[in-house]
Amino acid sequence: MIVKEKPLIFITNDDGVYALGINSLIEGIRSLGEIVVIAPDGGRSGMSSAISATNPVRLNLVRKEEDLTVYSCSGTPVDCVKLGINEILDRKPDLILSGINHGSNAAICVIYSGTIGATLEGCIWGVPSLGISLCDHSPDANFSEAVKYGRKIAEKVLEEGLPKGICLNLNIPAIPELNGLKVCSQTKGYWAKEFQVAKDPAGKTVYWLCGEFTNEEPDNEQSDEWAISQGYAALVPLQINMTAYDFLQEIKGWEK
Amino acid sequence: MIVKEKPLIFITNDDGVYALGINSLIEGIRSLGEIVVIAPDGGRSGMSSAISATNPVRLNLVRKEEDLTVYSCSGTPVDCVKLGINEILDRKPDLILSGINHGSNAAICVIYSGTIGATLEGCIWGVPSLGISLCDHSPDANFSEAVKYGRKIAEKVLEEGLPKGICLNLNIPAIPELNGLKVCSQTKGYWAKEFQVAKDPAGKTVYWLCGEFTNEEPDNEQSDEWAISQGYAALVPLQINMTAYDFLQEIKGWEK
Repeated sequence: MIVKEKPLIFITNDDGVYALGINSLIEGIRSLGEIVVIAPDGGRSGMSSAISATNPVRLNLVRKEEDLTVYSCSGTPVDCVKLGINEILDRKPDLILSGINHGSNAAICVIYSGTIGATLEGCIWGVPSLGISLCDHSPDANFSEAVKYGRKIAEKVLEEGLPKGICLNLNIPAIPELNGLKVCSQTKGYWAKEFQVAKDPAGKTVYWLCGEFTNEEPDNEQSDEWAISQGYAALVPLQINMTAYDFLQEIKGWEK
Repeated sequence: MIVKEKPLIFITNDDGVYALGINSLIEGIRSLGEIVVIAPDGGRSGMSSAISATNPVRLNLVRKEEDLTVYSCSGTPVDCVKLGINEILDRKPDLILSGINHGSNAAICVIYSGTIGATLEGCIWGVPSLGISLCDHSPDANFSEAVKYGRKIAEKVLEEGLPKGICLNLNIPAIPELNGLKVCSQTKGYWAKEFQVAKDPAGKTVYWLCGEFTNEEPDNEQSDEWAISQGYAALVPLQINMTAYDFLQEIKGWEK
């Protein structure tokens, strides 16, 4: 009898290693394989694909149990993935999961999100990668549907893999029971009215980033925002090659 | 006689407001219009599209001359663009320039680069945006060819605009005279051997990010790395919609 090696699953996030979302995910998928977690030692929301280009990064062992090792890291979500693959794991993982994020990463949030930054990084390394977010920012949100759908997609990806250069972004509406899964496109839109202008205690002006999302295609039933608004889990495949090929052909004449 | 309003050009970077690259760019394109600069108060390399999600951001006026206003900002490159559009400029700029970066932002660097983060942000706001990088990290690099080509593309974009959702990434090889311009795709590749492991003065392990780029398609004559290696300025159109549409169709069946 051949004993098949357990899948090696790497987990990170951008809310930090002690957040409820990542710990709900760890418990929910623990039975699927050997789990190694490297996650930031505190919140790193909005870190995108930032890397620690000028400062060294530190790792600390948080806990070690059978088939589960958890580290905290002083760096960014992308640093966590890079450290895992380059320094900690003894082989390339079979799957990278990022999340479960406290808050939506649908639409243009893919550009700013540390959760998605880590997901893209896994993809750059050729590892099937899935970012998972729950559309609820509260620290004690109910992650049960997010874990259920996240695990289902994780199992699918472990079975079938993903094409090179493509990863997945899963967003879960904050409702007790979902209507199902929709495979979607990234909703077109942007964040507007972005700052609250305030004074610090010394009377100097400071700018707090806040803002509200403007959906430029609210009627697009193929978009992730639409799916979420209808109570569906929204799954968007993302590609790391950002080349606009059609427009590339249009401006070939600029070479002259 | 109708006096046409001067173009409003917004400039930022990720090397900081005092870097030679951004100041070379400012001087090189100053005659094209009214210039407003908001750039980080120090280096922000590798900041990607990071935003200041939890801390307030500050602005300081650095200098004000005819048709030129320069601010420094305590935030990220993307914060600079957001502040410019939301708080400082009295109208949407006609063009956003980011750079000139000290160091290449070709290939997969688009994902990590603060220079490109700011360029993508301009694009999200619907402003024609161009990131410019010179493949030379030295603080006293020669920016003359980069300024020449950057200005040429900037003039083209001011004339013709860019389609919604698309921006430009221009990389300039570090040679005295270029062979011309190539319109290219983002080279497939990744950074490998990424960390130097060292001890801090207290004897604790720290990880310094470094690494080397692995080009997965060195023979692709349409790629930006190839163009740069042949002495051409490499211009890649980038899109902010990261949806992998072909694969989306393939996994529609997962909805069941």
